[in-house]
Amino acid sequence: MAIDFKRELENAARSMILVHDPDILIKTIIRAVVEKASIEHASVLLYDPKRQAYVLSISGGSLSKKVPVGFATLDKDDSLIRFFRERNSRVIFKSDILTLSGADKVLKDNALSGRLKSLLNDVIYQIKLLDTVVCIPSYFRDELLCLLLLGRKRNGREFIAQELDFFLALASNMAMAIRNAQLFKELESELDKKHQLFMRTTIALVAAIEAKDNYTHGHTTRVTNFSLQIAKRLKAKNKKLINEKFMESLHIASLLHDVGKIGIPEQILNKRSVLTVGERNRIKEHPLIGATILKPIKELEESIVGIKYHHERPDGLGYPDGLKGQEIPLIASIISVADAFDAMTTDRPYRSALYRDEAIKEINRLSSLQFSPLVTEAFIELCREGVL
Amino acid sequence: MAIDFKRELENAARSMILVHDPDILIKTIIRAVVEKASIEHASVLLYDPKRQAYVLSISGGSLSKKVPVGFATLDKDDSLIRFFRERNSRVIFKSDILTLSGADKVLKDNALSGRLKSLLNDVIYQIKLLDTVVCIPSYFRDELLCLLLLGRKRNGREFIAQELDFFLALASNMAMAIRNAQLFKELESELDKKHQLFMRTTIALVAAIEAKDNYTHGHTTRVTNFSLQIAKRLKAKNKKLINEKFMESLHIASLLHDVGKIGIPEQILNKRSVLTVGERNRIKEHPLIGATILKPIKELEESIVGIKYHHERPDGLGYPDGLKGQEIPLIASIISVADAFDAMTTDRPYRSALYRDEAIKEINRLSSLQFSPLVTEAFIELCREGVL
Repeated sequence: MAIDFKRELENAARSMILVHDPDILIKTIIRAVVEKASIEHASVLLYDPKRQAYVLSISGGSLSKKVPVGFATLDKDDSLIRFFRERNSRVIFKSDILTLSGADKVLKDNALSGRLKSLLNDVIYQIKLLDTVVCIPSYFRDELLCLLLLGRKRNGREFIAQELDFFLALASNMAMAIRNAQLFKELESELDKKHQLFMRTTIALVAAIEAKDNYTHGHTTRVTNFSLQIAKRLKAKNKKLINEKFMESLHIASLLHDVGKIGIPEQILNKRSVLTVGERNRIKEHPLIGATILKPIKELEESIVGIKYHHERPDGLGYPDGLKGQEIPLIASIISVADAFDAMTTDRPYRSALYRDEAIKEINRLSSLQFSPLVTEAFIELCREGVL
Repeated sequence: MAIDFKRELENAARSMILVHDPDILIKTIIRAVVEKASIEHASVLLYDPKRQAYVLSISGGSLSKKVPVGFATLDKDDSLIRFFRERNSRVIFKSDILTLSGADKVLKDNALSGRLKSLLNDVIYQIKLLDTVVCIPSYFRDELLCLLLLGRKRNGREFIAQELDFFLALASNMAMAIRNAQLFKELESELDKKHQLFMRTTIALVAAIEAKDNYTHGHTTRVTNFSLQIAKRLKAKNKKLINEKFMESLHIASLLHDVGKIGIPEQILNKRSVLTVGERNRIKEHPLIGATILKPIKELEESIVGIKYHHERPDGLGYPDGLKGQEIPLIASIISVADAFDAMTTDRPYRSALYRDEAIKEINRLSSLQFSPLVTEAFIELCREGVL
C-alpha cells in the first residue's frame, strides 16, 4: 500500500467513537495524525455552537508559537471559514480539499473571477500565517463542522492524491466522532440539569413544608448534611457498605424524612405546652405518612425505607414497626442519629437545646439502645474531629 | 483495489456512528454488507446485557426460514458463543475469524485436542444450521460483543484473505458503533427516568400539600389536565404560539399553581363561614408565596411566571400586580381559565358547585374581563366538543 500509516491511523480512528469528550477526542486524533503520518504539525478548527465561531485546537508546540493573538477563534464571516462554508474549493479545485500548491497554481493561471481571486488570496495569506499547506473540511448535514489543517511532511515531499483522499475520509470520520461526542455531552448535561431540577424542587417544597413547623427552621438542611457526612465516613471505613446509589437515596431520604408532618395538624406541631398522649401518637404517625406519600414512586424505594424507619430503635422501642437491631436498615439508622443530634441541639417547644457536648454524650450513651452502634461510632469520630 | 465494495462499505460504516438506535444500526449495516459485498445473507449475534444472552438479527429473508426455533437467542454457554468467548479461533486458526472451509481442513488434519475437536464439531454443526460460512467476532474490552455471520458469496467463490481482513475491521467498527448506540440509549433512558422521578415526586408532594385544604381534593390534577388540553388546542390553531418547552413549563406550573397555599394558615383555608377582608387578603397572597418558594430554581423561570400571575385579569382587577390585557403571560392565562372552571364546578366552603353549563356560560361572559379571549375561545371549543 502506498501510504503505510493508513492502517495505524484507521485503528486509532476506530476507537474514536467511544471517546465522548470532544476535547480529548480532537487532541488524540491530531496527535495520531502528526505522529503516524510524519507531519510537522496539524490542527483543527472546530465549530463551537455556543460561541457561533470556529475554535483552533493545536497539536505539538511548533505551530502555537506562530499563531497570532486573535487567530484562535475565527467567526463565521472570516474568509477562511467563508471559503469552505460556501464550498468554494469544489468550484475552484473540483475537490473539497484546498492545498497551498494548488491554490498558487490556480492563481497563476489567472482563470478566476475577481471575487474568488480576492477570497482565495485572503485564504492563502491566512493559511500561510498558520503555516498550513493542506486544509480539509468536514461537513455534517451540509454544515461545516471542522477544518483539519496540516503542516508540511517531515520528509519535505508533497502530499500525494491518495494521501489527501485518505485524510478527507479521516476528517469525515473525525467530524462524525466529534458530533457524536458533542451529542453525548449535551445529553449528559441535560441529565445533570434534570437531576438539579429534581433536587432543587424537592428542597424548595420541603423548605415550604418545614416552614409550617415554627420550631424546625433549617432542620432538614442540617440533618441532610449530618447524614451525608456520616455515610461518607462509613464508606471510608468499609467501601462495600455504601455505594453511589445509596448516597443518592440517603440524600433524598434525609431531605424528605419529615415530609409526613404535612399530615399532622398545625396546632399539634406548634403547641407550646406539653403534648397529650393522643397528640404524641399523632406526631408518631409522620414516618408512615411520609412513606405513604412517596409510595407510588418506584425509584424512591430505598429512600422510602429511610423515611419510614428513621424513628426505629435497636432495642425495639421505636416506631412504626418496633424493629430490632439489625432489622433496622442502615439508611434509617443514619438518619436517626442525624435527626436526634439536630433535635437535641436546637430549641423545641417543649424544652430548650442541650449543649453540643451533652448531646454527643447522650447519643453515645444510647448506642445500641436508641442508635445503631456502627453509626454512633462514625458519628462520634466525626464530632471528635470537628467535622460535625 | 482487490475488493471493490470496500469504499462503499466504508462510507456506509462512516455514518453508523450517528445512528443511536442499536436495532436500526444493525439492520442498516447488515443490509449494506449483503448488498455491497454480494453475499447471500448476513446476520449478527449481539450480546444483550439484560438477557445475558446473544440475540440474532437477520437481514434478508432467505436465512430466517432456516433458523430453527430456539436458535434466535444463544446463551453464554452455547458452544458457538463459548468458542469465541474463549478465543479458541486464535488458538486453532491464528486468527479471530472462523471459516467453514478452514474448520473442515483443521479437522481433517486431526491435530486438535479432543476437547477442541469436539467443540469445533459442535460449532460447525451450528453454523451449518445457520447456513453460515464465515464467523467474525467483535470484542470490546475483551468481551465478545457480537458475531457477524456471513452467508456464501453470490458468485460462488470463496472469501479471500483481504476480504476477511476488511470484514474484521468492519465488525470492529460495528461493535464500537453498537456500543456507542447502547450507551446513548442508556443515557436517554436515564434522562427519561430522572424526568419521571421529578414529575412524580412533585405530584406526590403537591398532593400531600393539597390534602391540607379539605375542599380542593383532586383540584390540581384536574387543573393540570384542563391546562394541557387548552394548550394543545391553542397549538393546533397556531403552531408558533406553543412549543415543547412551553408545554413542560405549563405542566409544572399547573401542578404547582397553588403551592403557595402552604403559607396560608389551615384555619383560613378550611374556614366554613364567610371570610373576613383580612382573611381574603391572606389567601390572595398564595400566588406570590408560590413564586417565592420556587424562585431559587432557575430552570422553573417560565413556570414561576404562570404560578405568580394565574389570578391576574385582563381588566386589571386581578392580583398580585394588577396586570392588564396582553401584559398577562399566556401560561398564566391558561391556568387562570382551567383553575376557575374547576373551582366553579366543585363545592367550596363558601358556596356549592355551579352546573357545568352555567360555569361555561360564566367563563364565556367574563372573556376579556377576567379571562384572556384567546384562551376562552379554545376552552369553549373543547367544552362544545366534549373534550373538557
